[in-house]
Amino acid sequence: MTENLRGLKLTSTVKSEGVLELALVDSEVRSPGPDEVVVRIEAAPINPSDLGLLFGLADMTAAEFSGSAERPVVRAPIPENFMKHMAGRLDEPMPVGNEGAGVVVAAGSSAAAQALLGRTVGVLGGAMYAQYRVLNASMCLPLGEDTSPREGAACFVNPLTALGMVETMRMEGHTALVHTAAASNLGQMLQKICLADGVGLVNIVRKPEQEEILRGIGAAHVVNSAAENFREDLTEALVTTGATLGFDAIGGGRLASDILACMEAAASRTATEYSRYGSTTHKQVYIYGGLDLGPTELHRSFGMYWGVGGWLLTPFLQKIGPEETQRLKERVADEVKTTFASHYAEEVSLAGALQADAISAYGQKATGQKYLINPNAGL
Amino acid sequence: MTENLRGLKLTSTVKSEGVLELALVDSEVRSPGPDEVVVRIEAAPINPSDLGLLFGLADMTAAEFSGSAERPVVRAPIPENFMKHMAGRLDEPMPVGNEGAGVVVAAGSSAAAQALLGRTVGVLGGAMYAQYRVLNASMCLPLGEDTSPREGAACFVNPLTALGMVETMRMEGHTALVHTAAASNLGQMLQKICLADGVGLVNIVRKPEQEEILRGIGAAHVVNSAAENFREDLTEALVTTGATLGFDAIGGGRLASDILACMEAAASRTATEYSRYGSTTHKQVYIYGGLDLGPTELHRSFGMYWGVGGWLLTPFLQKIGPEETQRLKERVADEVKTTFASHYAEEVSLAGALQADAISAYGQKATGQKYLINPNAGL
Repeated sequence: MTENLRGLKLTSTVKSEGVLELALVDSEVRSPGPDEVVVRIEAAPINPSDLGLLFGLADMTAAEFSGSAERPVVRAPIPENFMKHMAGRLDEPMPVGNEGAGVVVAAGSSAAAQALLGRTVGVLGGAMYAQYRVLNASMCLPLGEDTSPREGAACFVNPLTALGMVETMRMEGHTALVHTAAASNLGQMLQKICLADGVGLVNIVRKPEQEEILRGIGAAHVVNSAAENFREDLTEALVTTGATLGFDAIGGGRLASDILACMEAAASRTATEYSRYGSTTHKQVYIYGGLDLGPTELHRSFGMYWGVGGWLLTPFLQKIGPEETQRLKERVADEVKTTFASHYAEEVSLAGALQADAISAYGQKATGQKYLINPNAGL
Repeated sequence: MTENLRGLKLTSTVKSEGVLELALVDSEVRSPGPDEVVVRIEAAPINPSDLGLLFGLADMTAAEFSGSAERPVVRAPIPENFMKHMAGRLDEPMPVGNEGAGVVVAAGSSAAAQALLGRTVGVLGGAMYAQYRVLNASMCLPLGEDTSPREGAACFVNPLTALGMVETMRMEGHTALVHTAAASNLGQMLQKICLADGVGLVNIVRKPEQEEILRGIGAAHVVNSAAENFREDLTEALVTTGATLGFDAIGGGRLASDILACMEAAASRTATEYSRYGSTTHKQVYIYGGLDLGPTELHRSFGMYWGVGGWLLTPFLQKIGPEETQRLKERVADEVKTTFASHYAEEVSLAGALQADAISAYGQKATGQKYLINPNAGL
């Protein structure tokens, strides 16, 4: 059934001469093994977490566009001091796209694979900016009959990350959360989860319209980091919620430090005696993104009971194990049209994703600028 | 036996008008309860961890000295923006001195207290810059017959901190350590423990003479952060030892960041494939001091598997519990003249500790500038 089936996929290559090249490659789709299925990908989001692999630290503002409308080619220079970070992927065309959704058009002989034939599934595992993807049946999340690939395209990275934040909070003994860049698709999911689960959430945003988005979905605590009273507002919200754990998508600058300092101020409100080392409340911020790639500045005006660290979905899922992971995935499938609904500014084809205007739009990672690729658009 | 016994103690007061006042106060020594003993303190070190309480963020370079030779008074201005951190201790004369050693001169009726009568003991619990200290017998660490108070004065803070670093390493699954400001008394103890226990240790110092001190006690890995090849040297030492945990006494600047980046470089040496999130080796730095009070700058060029946090002796001891704490204390008592030997630049009386030249010397927290107070000197 898949004999002679061919498909396009998007590849990103870091050339040893210091140039990034994005292109579409046409190749034969291999036949599925007994436990495998072939998914015709019809929707794959461009997440911030895809951009590192896609752009490879190249300067996209200096990109040059060539090729044809159907087979565009993008080349962009990589600053020399970044090339040392690229040693592991030199001259290797890398497929891109962490997650997506589509229809199972062929299946191996096993019962698990056959059961998926014709089903709409969400898939995680890389190389999703492609017309077809062959992968193990166990990596597919079957979606409801009435769920479209577009609706199910982003059912792993953001939903599991948002659920992972709440689970991490519980595992580490905190009772409420702080989140930055909180009006994002991910942030909205987190707010809906927290409302459903009765968990206090303090949302930090930078713009009034982002405050509105969150209040519109029922957020009780939204503070604006650009406001004059930001630290006072944040401290009040921390006193009210008791949040001692933050997840920060921004990374650079002093926001993580400010969060810890306001947590300390909130903890000190209830302190009855002087302690030279500050409160004994453990305060933690995990940095899970890098919207600002500059250095993180910690002013350490928050005592000695604190931590800052990296947080990533994959090790979190490894820590909780396959059973708990499956439970989270099923919640996503059940609530994919509500809690975990994503919004997209544009839907583009594979070729469309390599146009100058598209790259400059989704490259900003701005609220409301999320792109969806449909690799089979117009076919 | 202690009727009418009086003694001097050093107090630090933050006055609400923004002035720090250091003075000696004469008061009656209360009679011990059944489980208590009275210790005549004969030696108490001035540790960096004492200076926060002692100086209260005052500008000691602007200190004014008054009073008599026997009863000096020191006053220094506290910058206005620091006063908010002092709210918990305003106008309260606070005794100072985390630890010390002396002779038990009176004891309550209980067997435990009576057993200590006449013994030389190490004591932890604050207010040690005093001629006499009344405290529970359980807080005394009996020292060997041939151990002097001077030899036992620093048998808690530095020894337990150094042992705590090695225990933390084991508890958190690391196998070797990095330490900064490594030629300190604490650093030398840590090196001796690591040699005895067969644990790899990478010492980071700033000066050639500090390198010599550590090599002189058998250190295999000493790197100089002021050297041109610092990062290369550090990376090599990290490859050799496999250290993925650091303890940083400095706090400010980018040293913690450099340590994490070099740990990542060491981990990447053995990586076989490109990972966009860096290595999967968890790298941790704990900040346990603040020799540089400026912001910690994290450049985050070390992937997503990392953490930075505060580390403090008290919560560590609470975490391991009383039995394990006792085991560590006994090791200290056994090795107080070898592994845990401290060195002092000067021994001063209580009044001597409040002289201008002394304050400017021990206030620097410099290697080889450690002061010891003998509150009963010359009496």
